[in-house]
Amino acid sequence: MPNPTAAMLVIGDEILSGRTRDANMHYLAGELAERGIDLQEVRIVSDVHARIVDALKALRDGHDHVFTSGGIGPTHDDITADAVAAAFGVGLGVREDARAILEAHYQRTGLELNESRLRMARVPEGAVLIENPVSAAPGFSIGNVHVMAGVPSVFQAMVASLLPTLTAGKPLLSQTLRIQRGEGEIAGPLGALAAEFPQLSFGSYPYFRDGAFGAHVVVRGSDAAAVDAAMIRLGEIFPEAMA
Amino acid sequence: MPNPTAAMLVIGDEILSGRTRDANMHYLAGELAERGIDLQEVRIVSDVHARIVDALKALRDGHDHVFTSGGIGPTHDDITADAVAAAFGVGLGVREDARAILEAHYQRTGLELNESRLRMARVPEGAVLIENPVSAAPGFSIGNVHVMAGVPSVFQAMVASLLPTLTAGKPLLSQTLRIQRGEGEIAGPLGALAAEFPQLSFGSYPYFRDGAFGAHVVVRGSDAAAVDAAMIRLGEIFPEAMA
Repeated sequence: MPNPTAAMLVIGDEILSGRTRDANMHYLAGELAERGIDLQEVRIVSDVHARIVDALKALRDGHDHVFTSGGIGPTHDDITADAVAAAFGVGLGVREDARAILEAHYQRTGLELNESRLRMARVPEGAVLIENPVSAAPGFSIGNVHVMAGVPSVFQAMVASLLPTLTAGKPLLSQTLRIQRGEGEIAGPLGALAAEFPQLSFGSYPYFRDGAFGAHVVVRGSDAAAVDAAMIRLGEIFPEAMA
Repeated sequence: MPNPTAAMLVIGDEILSGRTRDANMHYLAGELAERGIDLQEVRIVSDVHARIVDALKALRDGHDHVFTSGGIGPTHDDITADAVAAAFGVGLGVREDARAILEAHYQRTGLELNESRLRMARVPEGAVLIENPVSAAPGFSIGNVHVMAGVPSVFQAMVASLLPTLTAGKPLLSQTLRIQRGEGEIAGPLGALAAEFPQLSFGSYPYFRDGAFGAHVVVRGSDAAAVDAAMIRLGEIFPEAMA
Protein backbone atom coordinates (compact mmCIF):
# COMPACT_ATOMS: atom_id res chain seq x y z
CA MET A 1 0.00 0.00 0.00
CA PRO A 2 1.40 3.42 -0.86
CA ASN A 3 2.13 5.83 1.98
CA PRO A 4 -0.51 8.40 2.92
CA THR A 5 0.16 11.81 1.36
CA ALA A 6 0.05 15.23 2.96
CA ALA A 7 0.21 18.95 2.31
CA MET A 8 0.77 21.81 4.72
CA LEU A 9 -0.76 25.27 4.70
CA VAL A 10 1.03 27.96 6.70
CA ILE A 11 -1.06 31.03 7.41
CA GLY A 12 1.45 33.72 8.06
CA ASP A 13 2.03 37.31 7.05
CA GLU A 14 5.02 37.23 9.38
CA ILE A 15 6.84 34.76 7.12
CA LEU A 16 5.87 36.45 3.84
CA SER A 17 7.03 39.83 5.14
CA GLY A 18 10.45 38.41 5.99
CA ARG A 19 10.04 39.01 9.71
CA THR A 20 10.11 35.38 10.82
CA ARG A 21 11.93 32.36 9.49
CA ASP A 22 9.69 29.30 9.31
CA ALA A 23 10.09 26.66 12.00
CA ASN A 24 6.83 24.68 11.90
CA MET A 25 7.20 23.46 8.34
CA HIS A 26 10.65 22.08 9.08
CA TYR A 27 9.41 20.40 12.25
CA LEU A 28 6.34 18.83 10.64
CA ALA A 29 8.34 17.62 7.63
CA GLY A 30 10.67 15.67 9.92
CA GLU A 31 7.83 14.16 11.96
CA LEU A 32 5.90 13.09 8.86
CA ALA A 33 8.98 11.49 7.27
CA GLU A 34 9.46 9.39 10.40
CA ARG A 35 5.85 8.22 10.30
CA GLY A 36 5.80 7.43 6.60
CA ILE A 37 3.38 10.18 5.60
CA ASP A 38 4.66 11.79 2.39
CA LEU A 39 4.66 15.59 2.53
CA GLN A 40 4.22 16.61 -1.11
CA GLU A 41 3.50 20.31 -1.01
CA VAL A 42 3.57 23.34 1.28
CA ARG A 43 1.81 26.63 0.70
CA ILE A 44 2.27 29.82 2.66
CA VAL A 45 -0.47 32.41 2.28
CA SER A 46 -1.17 35.75 3.91
CA ASP A 47 -3.93 36.42 6.45
CA VAL A 48 -6.61 36.99 3.79
CA HIS A 49 -9.87 35.02 4.02
CA ALA A 50 -10.25 34.22 0.32
CA ARG A 51 -6.62 33.09 -0.04
CA ILE A 52 -6.91 30.70 2.88
CA VAL A 53 -10.21 29.27 1.63
CA ASP A 54 -8.87 28.75 -1.91
CA ALA A 55 -5.70 27.06 -0.70
CA LEU A 56 -7.65 24.77 1.67
CA LYS A 57 -9.99 23.64 -1.11
CA ALA A 58 -7.12 22.95 -3.51
CA LEU A 59 -4.99 21.07 -0.98
CA ARG A 60 -7.64 18.90 0.70
CA ASP A 61 -8.71 17.49 -2.68
CA GLY A 62 -5.17 16.49 -3.66
CA HIS A 63 -3.83 14.87 -0.49
CA ASP A 64 -4.84 12.44 2.24
CA HIS A 65 -4.11 15.01 4.95
CA VAL A 66 -3.74 18.79 5.16
CA PHE A 67 -2.01 20.30 8.19
CA THR A 68 -2.39 24.01 8.87
CA SER A 69 -0.35 26.25 11.14
CA GLY A 70 -1.28 29.70 12.42
CA GLY A 71 -4.23 32.02 12.80
CA ILE A 72 -6.23 30.38 15.61
CA GLY A 73 -5.47 32.80 18.45
CA PRO A 74 -7.72 35.46 19.99
CA THR A 75 -6.86 38.53 17.86
CA HIS A 76 -8.60 40.18 14.89
CA ASP A 77 -6.08 38.68 12.44
CA ASP A 78 -6.83 35.11 13.61
CA ILE A 79 -9.23 34.07 10.86
CA THR A 80 -8.26 30.46 10.16
CA ALA A 81 -11.31 28.86 11.85
CA ASP A 82 -13.63 31.11 9.82
CA ALA A 83 -11.85 30.16 6.60
CA VAL A 84 -11.95 26.43 7.39
CA ALA A 85 -15.69 26.61 8.16
CA ALA A 86 -16.24 28.46 4.87
CA ALA A 87 -14.16 25.95 2.91
CA PHE A 88 -16.31 23.10 4.27
CA GLY A 89 -19.57 25.05 4.06
CA VAL A 90 -20.41 24.49 7.73
CA GLY A 91 -21.24 26.79 10.64
CA LEU A 92 -18.80 28.11 13.21
CA GLY A 93 -19.71 28.74 16.82
CA VAL A 94 -18.44 28.52 20.38
CA ARG A 95 -18.59 24.85 21.33
CA GLU A 96 -19.31 23.86 24.91
CA ASP A 97 -16.52 21.30 25.28
CA ALA A 98 -13.97 23.79 23.93
CA ARG A 99 -15.35 26.52 26.20
CA ALA A 100 -15.08 24.17 29.20
CA ILE A 101 -11.41 23.53 28.41
CA LEU A 102 -10.72 27.28 28.28
CA GLU A 103 -12.75 27.97 31.44
CA ALA A 104 -10.81 25.40 33.42
CA HIS A 105 -7.50 26.72 32.09
CA TYR A 106 -8.16 30.37 32.85
CA GLN A 107 -9.59 29.54 36.26
CA ARG A 108 -6.36 27.70 37.05
CA THR A 109 -4.18 30.56 35.82
CA GLY A 110 -6.30 33.33 37.38
CA LEU A 111 -6.99 35.07 34.07
CA GLU A 112 -10.31 36.19 32.68
CA LEU A 113 -12.02 34.23 29.89
CA ASN A 114 -12.94 37.41 28.03
CA GLU A 115 -14.63 37.79 24.66
CA SER A 116 -11.35 37.68 22.73
CA ARG A 117 -10.20 34.49 24.42
CA LEU A 118 -13.61 32.92 23.86
CA ARG A 119 -12.94 33.23 20.11
CA MET A 120 -10.54 30.30 20.61
CA ALA A 121 -13.50 28.05 21.51
CA ARG A 122 -15.07 28.62 18.08
CA VAL A 123 -14.95 25.33 16.19
CA PRO A 124 -16.50 24.42 12.82
CA GLU A 125 -19.46 22.03 13.03
CA GLY A 126 -18.43 18.40 12.93
CA ALA A 127 -14.81 18.98 13.94
CA VAL A 128 -12.84 16.90 16.46
CA LEU A 129 -10.65 18.76 18.96
CA ILE A 130 -6.83 18.44 19.02
CA GLU A 131 -5.45 18.60 22.53
CA ASN A 132 -3.11 21.47 23.46
CA PRO A 133 -1.22 20.62 26.66
CA VAL A 134 0.79 23.88 26.50
CA SER A 135 -1.86 26.59 26.56
CA ALA A 136 -5.22 24.73 26.51
CA ALA A 137 -6.89 26.40 23.49
CA PRO A 138 -7.46 23.40 21.23
CA GLY A 139 -6.79 22.81 17.56
CA PHE A 140 -9.25 20.75 15.55
CA SER A 141 -9.59 18.27 12.70
CA ILE A 142 -12.43 18.44 10.19
CA GLY A 143 -12.54 16.03 7.27
CA ASN A 144 -8.90 15.56 6.31
CA VAL A 145 -7.81 19.03 7.49
CA HIS A 146 -5.95 19.41 10.81
CA VAL A 147 -5.84 22.95 12.18
CA MET A 148 -3.05 23.86 14.60
CA ALA A 149 -1.50 26.91 16.22
CA GLY A 150 1.41 28.95 14.86
CA VAL A 151 3.46 29.34 18.06
CA PRO A 152 6.13 26.65 17.60
CA SER A 153 5.89 25.14 21.11
CA VAL A 154 2.11 24.85 20.80
CA PHE A 155 2.28 23.60 17.21
CA GLN A 156 4.69 20.86 18.25
CA ALA A 157 2.50 19.81 21.18
CA MET A 158 -0.53 19.59 18.91
CA VAL A 159 1.39 17.55 16.34
CA ALA A 160 2.34 15.18 19.16
CA SER A 161 -1.35 14.88 20.15
CA LEU A 162 -2.52 14.35 16.57
CA LEU A 163 0.00 12.15 14.76
CA PRO A 164 -0.52 8.95 16.78
CA THR A 165 -4.18 9.02 15.68
CA LEU A 166 -3.30 8.94 11.96
CA THR A 167 -2.51 5.84 9.93
CA ALA A 168 1.22 5.60 9.44
CA GLY A 169 3.09 4.44 6.34
CA LYS A 170 6.55 3.10 5.81
CA PRO A 171 9.05 5.57 7.26
CA LEU A 172 11.18 7.42 4.76
CA LEU A 173 14.76 6.29 5.29
CA SER A 174 17.62 8.40 4.06
CA GLN A 175 21.38 8.18 3.98
CA THR A 176 23.78 10.91 2.93
CA LEU A 177 27.21 10.89 1.34
CA ARG A 178 29.28 14.07 1.16
CA ILE A 179 31.33 14.27 -2.01
CA GLN A 180 34.07 16.85 -2.44
CA ARG A 181 33.56 17.37 -6.15
CA GLY A 182 31.51 19.73 -8.19
CA GLU A 183 28.06 18.43 -9.06
CA GLY A 184 29.09 18.49 -12.72
CA GLU A 185 31.36 15.51 -12.09
CA ILE A 186 28.89 13.69 -9.87
CA ALA A 187 25.94 14.10 -12.22
CA GLY A 188 26.74 11.46 -14.86
CA PRO A 189 27.45 8.47 -12.59
CA LEU A 190 24.67 9.52 -10.18
CA GLY A 191 22.07 9.61 -12.95
CA ALA A 192 23.13 6.12 -14.05
CA LEU A 193 22.88 4.82 -10.48
CA ALA A 194 19.43 6.40 -10.03
CA ALA A 195 18.26 4.48 -13.11
CA GLU A 196 19.45 1.23 -11.47
CA PHE A 197 17.30 1.85 -8.36
CA PRO A 198 13.94 3.14 -9.60
CA GLN A 199 12.33 2.52 -6.19
CA LEU A 200 14.64 5.09 -4.53
CA SER A 201 15.08 8.83 -4.96
CA PHE A 202 18.57 10.28 -5.36
CA GLY A 203 18.98 13.91 -4.47
CA SER A 204 22.09 15.99 -4.99
CA TYR A 205 22.39 19.13 -2.87
CA PRO A 206 25.38 21.24 -3.80
CA TYR A 207 27.14 23.47 -1.35
CA PHE A 208 29.78 26.13 -1.79
CA ARG A 209 32.38 26.41 0.93
CA ASP A 210 35.89 27.91 1.04
CA GLY A 211 35.74 28.67 -2.66
CA ALA A 212 34.93 25.12 -3.76
CA PHE A 213 31.76 23.24 -4.63
CA GLY A 214 30.83 19.89 -3.17
CA ALA A 215 27.55 18.04 -2.84
CA HIS A 216 25.56 16.04 -0.34
CA VAL A 217 24.10 13.09 -2.18
CA VAL A 218 21.00 11.80 -0.36
CA VAL A 219 19.47 8.41 -1.05
CA ARG A 220 15.84 8.14 0.11
CA GLY A 221 13.30 5.36 0.15
CA SER A 222 11.33 3.06 2.39
CA ASP A 223 13.20 -0.12 1.34
CA ALA A 224 16.09 -0.35 3.81
CA ALA A 225 17.96 -3.04 1.89
CA ALA A 226 17.81 -1.07 -1.34
CA VAL A 227 19.03 2.11 0.38
CA ASP A 228 21.97 0.16 1.85
CA ALA A 229 22.80 -1.40 -1.52
CA ALA A 230 22.71 1.97 -3.26
CA MET A 231 25.00 3.50 -0.63
CA ILE A 232 27.54 0.72 -1.13
CA ARG A 233 27.50 1.33 -4.90
CA LEU A 234 27.87 5.09 -4.30
CA GLY A 235 30.91 4.49 -2.13
CA GLU A 236 32.47 2.36 -4.88
CA ILE A 237 31.87 5.07 -7.48
CA PHE A 238 33.16 7.90 -5.25
CA PRO A 239 35.75 6.22 -3.01
CA GLU A 240 36.97 9.56 -1.60
CA ALA A 241 33.54 10.46 -0.21
CA MET A 242 32.70 10.81 3.47
CA ALA A 243 29.66 9.06 4.92
CA MET B 1 -0.19 52.96 -7.74
CA PRO B 2 -0.35 49.69 -5.80
CA ASN B 3 2.87 47.80 -5.20
CA PRO B 4 3.84 45.01 -7.60
CA THR B 5 2.90 41.56 -6.26
CA ALA B 6 4.95 38.39 -6.17
CA ALA B 7 4.89 34.69 -5.44
CA MET B 8 7.75 32.27 -4.87
CA LEU B 9 8.04 28.65 -5.93
CA VAL B 10 10.62 26.53 -4.11
CA ILE B 11 11.52 23.30 -5.88
CA GLY B 12 12.88 21.11 -3.17
CA ASP B 13 12.49 17.55 -2.00
CA GLU B 14 15.15 18.37 0.59
CA ILE B 15 12.80 20.77 2.37
CA LEU B 16 9.70 18.56 2.13
CA SER B 17 11.63 15.58 3.52
CA GLY B 18 12.69 17.60 6.55
CA ARG B 19 16.38 17.40 5.69
CA THR B 20 16.93 21.12 5.12
CA ARG B 21 15.41 24.17 6.71
CA ASP B 22 14.50 26.82 4.16
CA ALA B 23 16.80 29.82 3.82
CA ASN B 24 15.99 31.27 0.37
CA MET B 25 12.36 32.07 1.11
CA HIS B 26 13.31 34.02 4.20
CA TYR B 27 16.04 35.90 2.30
CA LEU B 28 13.83 36.78 -0.67
CA ALA B 29 10.94 37.87 1.58
CA GLY B 30 13.21 40.41 3.27
CA GLU B 31 14.62 41.74 -0.01
CA LEU B 32 11.17 42.12 -1.58
CA ALA B 33 9.77 43.92 1.47
CA GLU B 34 12.60 46.46 1.21
CA ARG B 35 11.87 47.06 -2.47
CA GLY B 36 8.10 47.37 -2.08
CA ILE B 37 7.23 44.17 -3.95
CA ASP B 38 4.48 42.37 -2.00
CA LEU B 39 5.17 38.66 -1.53
CA GLN B 40 1.69 37.14 -1.30
CA GLU B 41 2.25 33.40 -1.55
CA VAL B 42 4.95 30.74 -1.43
CA ARG B 43 4.64 27.17 -2.65
CA ILE B 44 7.09 24.37 -2.07
CA VAL B 45 6.76 21.37 -4.37
CA SER B 46 8.77 18.20 -4.87
CA ASP B 47 11.00 17.48 -7.86
CA VAL B 48 8.13 16.19 -10.02
CA HIS B 49 7.66 17.66 -13.50
CA ALA B 50 3.84 17.91 -13.45
CA ARG B 51 3.79 19.51 -10.00
CA ILE B 52 6.28 22.19 -11.00
CA VAL B 53 4.41 22.96 -14.24
CA ASP B 54 1.02 23.20 -12.48
CA ALA B 55 2.37 25.48 -9.76
CA LEU B 56 4.11 27.74 -12.31
CA LYS B 57 0.93 28.16 -14.34
CA ALA B 58 -1.18 28.95 -11.28
CA LEU B 59 1.30 31.42 -9.78
CA ARG B 60 2.29 33.37 -12.91
CA ASP B 61 -1.36 34.19 -13.64
CA GLY B 62 -2.03 35.55 -10.16
CA HIS B 63 1.01 37.74 -9.52
CA ASP B 64 3.22 40.32 -11.21
CA HIS B 65 6.35 38.25 -10.55
CA VAL B 66 7.16 34.64 -9.75
CA PHE B 67 10.57 33.79 -8.31
CA THR B 68 11.74 30.18 -8.30
CA SER B 69 14.55 28.57 -6.35
CA GLY B 70 16.21 25.22 -7.01
CA GLY B 71 16.55 22.54 -9.66
CA ILE B 72 18.81 24.23 -12.23
CA GLY B 73 22.05 22.34 -11.59
CA PRO B 74 23.67 19.59 -13.68
CA THR B 75 22.15 16.43 -12.13
CA HIS B 76 19.25 14.20 -13.19
CA ASP B 77 16.94 15.71 -10.57
CA ASP B 78 17.47 19.25 -11.93
CA ILE B 79 14.31 19.57 -14.01
CA THR B 80 13.20 23.16 -13.42
CA ALA B 81 14.25 24.49 -16.87
CA ASP B 82 12.29 21.69 -18.56
CA ALA B 83 9.22 22.47 -16.45
CA VAL B 84 9.43 26.21 -17.16
CA ALA B 85 9.73 25.59 -20.92
CA ALA B 86 6.70 23.27 -20.74
CA ALA B 87 4.68 25.79 -18.72
CA PHE B 88 5.31 28.44 -21.40
CA GLY B 89 4.99 26.00 -24.31
CA VAL B 90 8.41 26.91 -25.75
CA GLY B 91 11.49 24.91 -26.72
CA LEU B 92 14.51 24.30 -24.51
CA GLY B 93 18.04 24.01 -25.85
CA VAL B 94 21.66 24.88 -25.14
CA ARG B 95 22.03 28.56 -25.91
CA GLU B 96 25.31 29.89 -27.27
CA ASP B 97 25.66 32.87 -24.92
CA ALA B 98 25.02 30.64 -21.91
CA ARG B 99 27.46 28.04 -23.23
CA ALA B 100 30.10 30.75 -23.72
CA ILE B 101 29.71 31.84 -20.09
CA LEU B 102 30.21 28.24 -18.89
CA GLU B 103 33.17 27.66 -21.27
CA ALA B 104 34.98 30.74 -20.01
CA HIS B 105 34.30 29.75 -16.38
CA TYR B 106 35.49 26.16 -16.68
CA GLN B 107 38.56 27.20 -18.70
CA ARG B 108 39.45 29.57 -15.88
CA THR B 109 38.95 26.94 -13.21
CA GLY B 110 40.60 24.11 -15.15
CA LEU B 111 37.52 21.89 -15.12
CA GLU B 112 35.91 20.12 -18.03
CA LEU B 113 32.66 21.43 -19.54
CA ASN B 114 31.20 17.92 -19.75
CA GLU B 115 27.72 16.87 -20.85
CA SER B 116 26.23 17.21 -17.37
CA ARG B 117 27.56 20.73 -16.89
CA LEU B 118 26.35 21.72 -20.35
CA ARG B 119 22.80 21.03 -19.12
CA MET B 120 23.16 24.31 -17.21
CA ALA B 121 23.32 26.21 -20.54
CA ARG B 122 19.85 24.97 -21.51
CA VAL B 123 17.53 27.97 -21.52
CA PRO B 124 13.88 28.21 -22.66
CA GLU B 125 13.36 30.13 -25.92
CA GLY B 126 12.85 33.84 -25.36
CA ALA B 127 14.39 33.93 -21.88
CA VAL B 128 16.80 36.59 -20.59
CA LEU B 129 19.80 35.39 -18.55
CA ILE B 130 20.31 36.28 -14.87
CA GLU B 131 23.97 36.77 -14.00
CA ASN B 132 25.61 34.43 -11.49
CA PRO B 133 28.84 35.96 -10.19
CA VAL B 134 29.43 33.04 -7.79
CA SER B 135 29.54 30.00 -10.05
CA ALA B 136 28.82 31.32 -13.57
CA ALA B 137 25.89 29.04 -14.56
CA PRO B 138 23.14 31.60 -15.17
CA GLY B 139 19.54 31.82 -14.06
CA PHE B 140 16.95 33.22 -16.44
CA SER B 141 13.74 35.23 -16.67
CA ILE B 142 10.94 34.33 -19.06
CA GLY B 143 7.71 36.31 -19.05
CA ASN B 144 7.15 37.19 -15.40
CA VAL B 145 8.97 34.10 -14.05
CA HIS B 146 12.50 34.42 -12.67
CA VAL B 147 14.39 31.15 -12.31
CA MET B 148 17.25 30.96 -9.81
CA ALA B 149 19.51 28.41 -8.13
CA GLY B 150 18.84 26.66 -4.82
CA VAL B 151 22.30 27.00 -3.24
CA PRO B 152 21.78 29.97 -0.90
CA SER B 153 24.98 31.87 -1.83
CA VAL B 154 24.14 31.54 -5.53
CA PHE B 155 20.46 32.34 -5.00
CA GLN B 156 21.38 35.51 -3.14
CA ALA B 157 23.82 36.60 -5.85
CA MET B 158 21.17 36.07 -8.54
CA VAL B 159 18.60 38.03 -6.52
CA ALA B 160 21.14 40.86 -6.31
CA SER B 161 21.59 40.74 -10.12
CA LEU B 162 17.85 40.62 -10.79
CA LEU B 163 16.07 42.92 -8.35
CA PRO B 164 17.52 46.24 -9.58
CA THR B 165 16.00 45.47 -13.00
CA LEU B 166 12.44 45.22 -11.60
CA THR B 167 10.09 48.12 -10.93
CA ALA B 168 10.05 48.85 -7.21
CA GLY B 169 7.07 49.86 -5.09
CA LYS B 170 6.80 51.61 -1.78
CA PRO B 171 8.93 49.74 0.77
CA LEU B 172 7.01 47.91 3.46
CA LEU B 173 7.81 49.61 6.77
CA SER B 174 7.29 47.80 10.01
CA GLN B 175 7.65 48.56 13.70
CA THR B 176 7.33 46.09 16.53
CA LEU B 177 6.19 46.42 20.13
CA ARG B 178 6.74 43.59 22.59
CA ILE B 179 3.92 43.28 25.09
CA GLN B 180 4.24 41.10 28.17
CA ARG B 181 0.62 40.04 28.29
CA GLY B 182 -1.32 37.16 26.88
CA GLU B 183 -2.78 37.83 23.46
CA GLY B 184 -6.24 37.46 24.99
CA GLU B 185 -5.78 40.79 26.77
CA ILE B 186 -4.19 42.49 23.79
CA ALA B 187 -6.80 41.36 21.27
CA GLY B 188 -9.67 43.73 22.11
CA PRO B 189 -7.80 47.06 22.09
CA LEU B 190 -5.63 45.93 19.14
CA GLY B 191 -8.65 45.10 17.01
CA ALA B 192 -10.13 48.54 17.76
CA LEU B 193 -6.84 50.24 16.83
CA ALA B 194 -6.62 48.24 13.58
CA ALA B 195 -10.07 49.55 12.63
CA GLU B 196 -8.78 53.14 13.15
CA PHE B 197 -5.91 52.60 10.68
CA PRO B 198 -7.37 50.68 7.72
CA GLN B 199 -4.31 51.49 5.57
CA LEU B 200 -2.02 49.52 7.94
CA SER B 201 -1.84 45.88 8.89
CA PHE B 202 -1.58 44.90 12.56
CA GLY B 203 -0.10 41.50 13.30
CA SER B 204 0.09 39.86 16.69
CA TYR B 205 2.67 37.09 17.09
CA PRO B 206 2.44 35.35 20.42
CA TYR B 207 5.40 33.72 22.08
CA PHE B 208 5.71 31.43 25.05
CA ARG B 209 8.75 31.91 27.26
CA ASP B 210 9.54 30.96 30.86
CA GLY B 211 6.00 29.72 31.38
CA ALA B 212 4.29 32.95 30.28
CA PHE B 213 2.75 34.22 27.07
CA GLY B 214 3.57 37.54 25.48
CA ALA B 215 3.21 38.92 21.98
CA HIS B 216 5.10 40.91 19.42
CA VAL B 217 2.68 43.35 17.86
CA VAL B 218 3.87 44.40 14.41
CA VAL B 219 2.51 47.42 12.57
CA ARG B 220 3.15 47.31 8.82
CA GLY B 221 2.46 49.66 5.95
CA SER B 222 4.06 51.93 3.40
CA ASP B 223 2.81 55.17 4.98
CA ALA B 224 5.55 56.14 7.44
CA ALA B 225 3.52 58.83 9.22
CA ALA B 226 0.61 56.44 9.78
CA VAL B 227 2.94 53.73 11.13
CA ASP B 228 4.47 56.24 13.54
CA ALA B 229 1.04 57.47 14.66
CA ALA B 230 -0.18 53.92 15.25
CA MET B 231 2.90 53.09 17.31
CA ILE B 232 2.33 56.13 19.52
CA ARG B 233 -1.28 55.03 20.11
CA LEU B 234 -0.10 51.49 20.87
CA GLY B 235 2.34 52.81 23.44
CA GLU B 236 -0.48 54.77 25.11
CA ILE B 237 -2.71 51.69 25.24
CA PHE B 238 0.04 49.39 26.55
CA PRO B 239 2.32 51.72 28.56
CA GLU B 240 4.34 48.82 29.98
CA ALA B 241 5.40 47.56 26.53
CA MET B 242 8.94 47.59 25.20
CA ALA B 243 9.72 49.08 21.78
